[in-house]
Amino acid sequence: LAEQMIRVGASGASVLELADRSLEGAAMLAEIERLARVLLAVPDDFSVLIVPGGGTHQFVSIAYSFRRLFACMQFVETDYWTTRARVEASVFMKTDTLFDGAESGFRHLPSQAQIQRHNPVGVTFLTSNNTTAGTQWTRLPMLRTECRVVDMSSDIFATVPEYDSVDVVLACAQKHFGVAGMSLLLVRTSLLERARSVTGYLSLASWHNAKGRYNTFPMTLAAVVLECLRFIEATGVRELRERCERCSNRLYLFLDDSAAFSARITDRDARSRHNVTFELRDADERAYDRVLDIAAARGLKGLKGHPSVGGFRASFYFGAQERDAIELVNFLSEMDREVLHGNI
Amino acid sequence: LAEQMIRVGASGASVLELADRSLEGAAMLAEIERLARVLLAVPDDFSVLIVPGGGTHQFVSIAYSFRRLFACMQFVETDYWTTRARVEASVFMKTDTLFDGAESGFRHLPSQAQIQRHNPVGVTFLTSNNTTAGTQWTRLPMLRTECRVVDMSSDIFATVPEYDSVDVVLACAQKHFGVAGMSLLLVRTSLLERARSVTGYLSLASWHNAKGRYNTFPMTLAAVVLECLRFIEATGVRELRERCERCSNRLYLFLDDSAAFSARITDRDARSRHNVTFELRDADERAYDRVLDIAAARGLKGLKGHPSVGGFRASFYFGAQERDAIELVNFLSEMDREVLHGNI
Repeated sequence: LAEQMIRVGASGASVLELADRSLEGAAMLAEIERLARVLLAVPDDFSVLIVPGGGTHQFVSIAYSFRRLFACMQFVETDYWTTRARVEASVFMKTDTLFDGAESGFRHLPSQAQIQRHNPVGVTFLTSNNTTAGTQWTRLPMLRTECRVVDMSSDIFATVPEYDSVDVVLACAQKHFGVAGMSLLLVRTSLLERARSVTGYLSLASWHNAKGRYNTFPMTLAAVVLECLRFIEATGVRELRERCERCSNRLYLFLDDSAAFSARITDRDARSRHNVTFELRDADERAYDRVLDIAAARGLKGLKGHPSVGGFRASFYFGAQERDAIELVNFLSEMDREVLHGNI
Repeated sequence: LAEQMIRVGASGASVLELADRSLEGAAMLAEIERLARVLLAVPDDFSVLIVPGGGTHQFVSIAYSFRRLFACMQFVETDYWTTRARVEASVFMKTDTLFDGAESGFRHLPSQAQIQRHNPVGVTFLTSNNTTAGTQWTRLPMLRTECRVVDMSSDIFATVPEYDSVDVVLACAQKHFGVAGMSLLLVRTSLLERARSVTGYLSLASWHNAKGRYNTFPMTLAAVVLECLRFIEATGVRELRERCERCSNRLYLFLDDSAAFSARITDRDARSRHNVTFELRDADERAYDRVLDIAAARGLKGLKGHPSVGGFRASFYFGAQERDAIELVNFLSEMDREVLHGNI
């Protein structure tokens, strides 16, 4: 729903003009780093890396970069994307599944006890907000390993990383602060130094050493990201996070009270503030299609849930407005009546 | 000079709007493939892959994709970029240097005899136009190997690949048909089928099987590329190539006749139509800086040669206009006189 709403400032001409290497380009990258440091309160012992590629690219580059430092990478698989991260990482490192959420349809986050058997000298990987499952950690679990990677692609800025309990934060720009094709990484600098012997395009140490200019950077995307960060700074991280919360709370409130619909995630502490997944309490595939068709005809597109979990999904990122959530709840209330009257 | 000139049509709003996954997005990718097929006369047994990342990304992905099929990748190193390609590929495959142009300052292309010792069951890699050296193959050398990779990043469309003597054509969008961050690959389909067992984000077979949607594509960049391809179709490949040739010919004509300047590449058959490298016949470092300073003050930026070869460079891609070349020649004529009068 709100995924495509962050469309800020930058005029077409300027975005394309900045495609070349220039002093302006270097200044833009420096400004992105500065804003990220301020908005995310990044400590001095962390490096901010502005890198090309989306989330999948980073799954690969993180495993590649640290493959000589650690024997194994263990995944807390809380949705489709964590599993993809494991598959991509397995090219370069031994990988293991610490928790497999697929067994329960990704409806729950694991308890601390369920992820105890982690290897202390390995890497652990988890995702703070799960866009497809609709779950989000209120507080990240304690993982006593040498290197802890957290994918914060879908709640970065709305959530500030807990730097004490993380070594690598990965965030593709696509959700809260830009468009697909580039990412922001916050990496404990000592880790980059230890990984220095692994070089090349996929090496985070190489990007760190080259100060973000390892190869020609897609400045077109950087220009969009910079405009988004300025928008975030001007509006305020807190205001934007609360907008998302007001939107998702409205929807959860409706769902918990609805006769025909219900929230997929029953544990309130595990519910995502950004991605609300829900389903029909009692209906066949055709009823789902019918609701989606009527929604699309009203201009409410993108409500179909991810194939890995099915059902419906509404996403609220930093472009979200409360009126969109109200419109959606009104539509679902109407559908509620239609379902009860057997019209769907 | 002309590198940043392809700035066509697409309005800012539409470029950013297309960042999300949508029917329009799929149609855009299909249209890019169609235009590439038509403009490059791609035969039916070649696949057109539209992939994220620039040239360096493809150096990595090609080596990764074919690492199990071939024992070794041999490089005809005709400039800085071919050497970088070898270094990046060496992460995944045994590599070897078939010709090392660095020994002669990248001033010559090798003769057929100089590249005879190639491994017939390996991969060979060469670059059709060398942006930093200023050389270009009039006709690609015959390499009787199982897999021949040609980097055509800087002359694609101006030159149509010789499909009989190549298996993989790689072209990053940045020079002739877009901005940094995405590439076009033309790959013999049978090769992709043979490489099917290698999967993951870096695998070209995976991108082929996923029909270009292996992960979220940077549609912002695709929108720019599509506008550029439409511009190329509307203006005509021949007209654009001839514009580049008229520009570089003017400059070579001046250089061959100049008292103070000379073309770096003396063999006329090896001269690039897109990147003219030149130097002062007799001058110290300070004279170079002085010419560059005066040029910059007149708005003639980007004349500094690549660090790997030094000197000057003027580039003419599809945004090039003859008036730019005339302006440059006029400026250099003036410098010619200044140098002769001892003012530089």
